[in-house]
Amino acid sequence: MSVQQKQRGGPSSPSCSSADTLPLSHLNTAESGSESPAELEKHESSAVSTMRSVVLFYLCFLLCLCLGVACVVCVSLWNTRWRGGFAWNGSALQFNWHPVLMTTGLVVLYGYGAVLYRVPLTWGQNKLPWKLLHASLMLLAFILSVVGLCAVFDFHNAKNTPNLYSLHSWIGISAVALFALQWVGGMAGFLLPWTPVSFRKLLKPTHVWFGGSILTLSIAACISGINEKLFFVLKGNTSASYGQLPPEALLANSLGVLIVAFGLVVLKILSNPKWQRPDSRPENTAYSPLLQEDNE
Amino acid sequence: MSVQQKQRGGPSSPSCSSADTLPLSHLNTAESGSESPAELEKHESSAVSTMRSVVLFYLCFLLCLCLGVACVVCVSLWNTRWRGGFAWNGSALQFNWHPVLMTTGLVVLYGYGAVLYRVPLTWGQNKLPWKLLHASLMLLAFILSVVGLCAVFDFHNAKNTPNLYSLHSWIGISAVALFALQWVGGMAGFLLPWTPVSFRKLLKPTHVWFGGSILTLSIAACISGINEKLFFVLKGNTSASYGQLPPEALLANSLGVLIVAFGLVVLKILSNPKWQRPDSRPENTAYSPLLQEDNE
Repeated sequence: MSVQQKQRGGPSSPSCSSADTLPLSHLNTAESGSESPAELEKHESSAVSTMRSVVLFYLCFLLCLCLGVACVVCVSLWNTRWRGGFAWNGSALQFNWHPVLMTTGLVVLYGYGAVLYRVPLTWGQNKLPWKLLHASLMLLAFILSVVGLCAVFDFHNAKNTPNLYSLHSWIGISAVALFALQWVGGMAGFLLPWTPVSFRKLLKPTHVWFGGSILTLSIAACISGINEKLFFVLKGNTSASYGQLPPEALLANSLGVLIVAFGLVVLKILSNPKWQRPDSRPENTAYSPLLQEDNE
Repeated sequence: MSVQQKQRGGPSSPSCSSADTLPLSHLNTAESGSESPAELEKHESSAVSTMRSVVLFYLCFLLCLCLGVACVVCVSLWNTRWRGGFAWNGSALQFNWHPVLMTTGLVVLYGYGAVLYRVPLTWGQNKLPWKLLHASLMLLAFILSVVGLCAVFDFHNAKNTPNLYSLHSWIGISAVALFALQWVGGMAGFLLPWTPVSFRKLLKPTHVWFGGSILTLSIAACISGINEKLFFVLKGNTSASYGQLPPEALLANSLGVLIVAFGLVVLKILSNPKWQRPDSRPENTAYSPLLQEDNE
């Protein structure tokens, strides 16, 4: 079996070591002897290119992790330092859970869960634990988002404010509803053992594209939500009005920029075909059924 | 030269007819004789798959065109029927140009320009006219966006309102600034004849990804802008307040949904590797220099 076959998820055998399927496995094959100088040169050039791709991935992944942490820190700081902290009593303090939980769940944890399979270190290993971690992270992200929605619904109900009238709420609720569908579809399609392989093959690109679309909706919902909140709370013509860009506005605007940057890095990681798990690349016609592979 | 080589933009000769390079060229090759039944079956299956991909593309492309027209109609109707129409005198009527021009330029024309190369009918033809059309559509989109920005700056200045303080404006101005960089980079990289081919090869995926990111920023800016405008103009506790979802709010919210749907369809078209112009696909290692090909 050629290195390329192994890398693209060709028929695997139980005797395959994890090192064989790691992205840097090219590096060893050049030492196997019986290869012409041209072949050796090709292998070396391919190894350098793979190494560069892996290093670039880890830089993007590190940036993604740091931006995610920065988003959570900023949104928590904003609501603690300037909005009075948190409570669960129908007051504005209950509302404060909304931006914190939506940013943490629907953006950061969701993004981390989405890029999990792209980490090259996971490629040579049994996929099942990573699938379970992906599903669990997404479930946690979904639960946080639902609690975040409850926070704002309770706050509106306590104030007799209508729900779901603004464009922000339409986009946000669509993101959460599609997220629910995506989670159930992903669970049924990729974790239940009786799902036909042909259905999985069809579902995979749709699942990935849908995932990116939900993140795009989440970003649009977050930006419109932060913008709306700042216009609500920084009113009037004082030095604390939004137009004067007081420290709170600077921090919350920066939070919006961080959320957009995080989303774009996640979408970049998802869209690069070189960073896809080798057995999931679109050009791989010999698609390996996921659970079959998991059980090997 | 195999069909696959032609489809992937392998070395082309002046004698190639445009039919050879069209996506359905498989259909003819099966009739060329001297092929085994297995090869014939493979060709037929490949032709059916290509045909399905082309039909699916045109359905998406039609949806993209319709959604774009719907966005322009909705934003024009909103500002004519409910916001009093247009003027250029520093009044609220001048502001009304802002949503119309940003939606038309930064979203719809931009999206149309972005998916232009994906239309299979253009694949067998000289690329230069399509490159010029792409650059012209993008330039028109950029000019409309800049006029749209002037409309809001003039309106703010006439009212002594600060500029560029809201998160909406930060995201929107970033989108336009990146669009300017993207246009200049695209012009220098792909239209100037002295740009090295190696640089074009490096620039291409970055140009496509940057293009998608600018559209994501535009969508976030539009959603936050429409949301903000509706909160500004539909105030109070009357039946015309935003919370009561009067017809204006319903129309403008629907405009937001249409913009998001349009953006997601454009991003879907851009992200499908099967719909990329064959000489631009990432797996095409024998990259053909764009201008060299144009001049053939």
